[in-house]
Amino acid sequence: MEGIRDRLQEDMEESRGIPRCRTWNFNRNAKLESVTTHLTISGTISTITANLDHRDTRPTIPLARGDPSHSPCFRTTPIAEDAIISAVRSAQYNSYPPRFGLLPARRAIAEYLSRDLPCKLSPDDVFLTVGCKQAIKIVISALALPRANILLPRPAYPLYDSCATQYGVEARYYDLIPERNWEIDLDSVQSVADENTVAIVIINPGNPCGNVFTYEQLAKVVETARELGILVISDEVYGHLTFGNNPFVPMGFFGSVVPVITVGSISKRWVVPGWRLGWLVTCDHKGILKEAKIVDRIKNCLDVSSSPATFIQGAIPQILGNTREDFFNKTIELLKQAADICYERIKEIDCITCPCKPEGSMFVMVKMNLSLLEDILDDMDFCCKLAKEESVVILPGSAVGWPNWLRITFAIEPSSLEEGLGRLKSFCQKHAKKQ
Amino acid sequence: MEGIRDRLQEDMEESRGIPRCRTWNFNRNAKLESVTTHLTISGTISTITANLDHRDTRPTIPLARGDPSHSPCFRTTPIAEDAIISAVRSAQYNSYPPRFGLLPARRAIAEYLSRDLPCKLSPDDVFLTVGCKQAIKIVISALALPRANILLPRPAYPLYDSCATQYGVEARYYDLIPERNWEIDLDSVQSVADENTVAIVIINPGNPCGNVFTYEQLAKVVETARELGILVISDEVYGHLTFGNNPFVPMGFFGSVVPVITVGSISKRWVVPGWRLGWLVTCDHKGILKEAKIVDRIKNCLDVSSSPATFIQGAIPQILGNTREDFFNKTIELLKQAADICYERIKEIDCITCPCKPEGSMFVMVKMNLSLLEDILDDMDFCCKLAKEESVVILPGSAVGWPNWLRITFAIEPSSLEEGLGRLKSFCQKHAKKQ
Repeated sequence: MEGIRDRLQEDMEESRGIPRCRTWNFNRNAKLESVTTHLTISGTISTITANLDHRDTRPTIPLARGDPSHSPCFRTTPIAEDAIISAVRSAQYNSYPPRFGLLPARRAIAEYLSRDLPCKLSPDDVFLTVGCKQAIKIVISALALPRANILLPRPAYPLYDSCATQYGVEARYYDLIPERNWEIDLDSVQSVADENTVAIVIINPGNPCGNVFTYEQLAKVVETARELGILVISDEVYGHLTFGNNPFVPMGFFGSVVPVITVGSISKRWVVPGWRLGWLVTCDHKGILKEAKIVDRIKNCLDVSSSPATFIQGAIPQILGNTREDFFNKTIELLKQAADICYERIKEIDCITCPCKPEGSMFVMVKMNLSLLEDILDDMDFCCKLAKEESVVILPGSAVGWPNWLRITFAIEPSSLEEGLGRLKSFCQKHAKKQ
Repeated sequence: MEGIRDRLQEDMEESRGIPRCRTWNFNRNAKLESVTTHLTISGTISTITANLDHRDTRPTIPLARGDPSHSPCFRTTPIAEDAIISAVRSAQYNSYPPRFGLLPARRAIAEYLSRDLPCKLSPDDVFLTVGCKQAIKIVISALALPRANILLPRPAYPLYDSCATQYGVEARYYDLIPERNWEIDLDSVQSVADENTVAIVIINPGNPCGNVFTYEQLAKVVETARELGILVISDEVYGHLTFGNNPFVPMGFFGSVVPVITVGSISKRWVVPGWRLGWLVTCDHKGILKEAKIVDRIKNCLDVSSSPATFIQGAIPQILGNTREDFFNKTIELLKQAADICYERIKEIDCITCPCKPEGSMFVMVKMNLSLLEDILDDMDFCCKLAKEESVVILPGSAVGWPNWLRITFAIEPSSLEEGLGRLKSFCQKHAKKQ
């Protein structure tokens, strides 16, 4: 390499004689267009954590992300860890995975999801993805048809909006109604849909709202979708994480009435979001998506996308097949307890209110009463100052399309949650308008 | 769940009264546009393997993919497996990874690549990706500027072309010259470039050609790129896998002369393509890419993309830092031996010729002489019939933009390689025109 370095030096001296281009083509072209910055949860959290005061000796309390895997009480089951380790040790999963995923993994996911459905899914209905995130990207890009628009809930996980922008699909919004436990405003669905609407997205259990749709509510969505002639995309990444009155009903239940695409992953129920194993599943008993070549579009998008690591795919049959109910029950119990703490503590804070107790997922949405706060401009300002003064990180509602609210996750060690909410209370007291 | 099922039944009976939509909007819209089927290696291999005759009791010999991980002699080092296992066992890597990757992993990759460069890379120059495939997608999508075109080699790994189509970047082609060991035809580079050309892609060591560019050849590419005002994208996924006269010179060497983006991964050198850990690295001493906001575009694309599994990122410092030279040497020795076998055996086959001995990567390109073959239409027909009659799978050149050639991988257990090439010879003899 030394010889090569000398030659480089010589070449670079020689090259002084070579005409230098004055502009770089990409530079000139790049200046013609502004950079699209996508609104993302991580981007917003980065902005907020930049305000943390490192002189504060107290631990930072992270209440912004749906990722409790840092908390020892939420550690995943050893069955999942062992499954990965035995897949790695076997050396059977070092090669590229097959298109759409290893068959035993697709079969295991089909069986896992079919447990709660009236009909059995086939492995051919299942496509493995790099977390639920890639499943969302794939489904939106597969629907990038001429003039197409899709209906997104407001508030919502912002990736849907970013993907729609990226793939040139128009995003239209329907409302969730906080006073009615974040029920879908079906009138707003009807009013924004037109003949170019191709799909409606629902997130159940709800992110960011912590609600769980009832069977009746889902049935109404399905009827509306059928009338409108659109498919239902059901984001069930928080599937089964329910601890209130409403049981989790998968949208696939209605796959005989409308075509349904379900996206999900092991990230939340197994508390391993870093393992990046998700799925996109078609629940479409009449084969409407196949007939319309939407399935071909999904396959084409997957063909030019990366896959989840093969050995994680190889571990899926063991993970889904062998995890014991007591692991799931423990997680639910912890979430329920944390949701209770969260709801009670927030009641004690004057300038924020929680319209309804969370019953699923890992979040609650709370409303800020800006008129009671002295020197807070908006939700982002609130979150930045809270990070700076109290080392507590929560997500501003504007990051999920619902300004001047806050999304708080309660999925964290209960003692840290108590501590975080205590600091939130102090912060609100400090910034309250003097009566 | 039983109660819910009954209700579904009732609802579905009731719903007979509800107006059924006559057309599904997505169906009507989908019919307006044909489905873009991307040409992919896996898609082509699927088509070919569909011809395999399952009555043939001999093992199928896979000579189509650059993935020797199935062969026991190419098993990865235990150091890599142990690193993954200890990352999983630690439970420190179950959470979402940070934006662009874990800092220790980015630092380890910067150090690993800097070993062969005149300047040190910083962790900020390194972005972790889900295999090299995602790095390619990200770089092409970041360059999707108005009217932009990029220069791709012909023949080439087809993902570049698919990504360009997907992101609306015009692909233009320059030629590699088989008679001169697949040297770049710089005249053809100059003739296809214009003021909207933003980048040139080179693949070194070469896929599909098995060539390794000399320092002088790379320096000429760099001079041309500088004159044209374009950046160089260097695909070094086969980096260090060289076994001929030319040592591997990373393009980052010239990062002080032109902006260079290098894409790579652990897939090939560690023989773990299924682990899906790659990188996109900017080697740009003058900060031109940052100034032109190309780095911001890369970050934005990554923000809405999935990341490699966190525990695999967590294992990277150990994998890159602790793997011993003897593991790499053994792989190189095996590849060299296999390349020799391949080259010698092909010489014995009349209707195909190999213009030059492979010196790097895992492939060789061989030319078919159709005039010597009796009942073979083209390269695809050749490969399908070869699969059917001899249970040997090789890639038709048309899959890499070079019709009526064949891409053969020699990265496989030597005994299987001998067997596969023997069957290839029989096949050619059987189909040779009678003199």
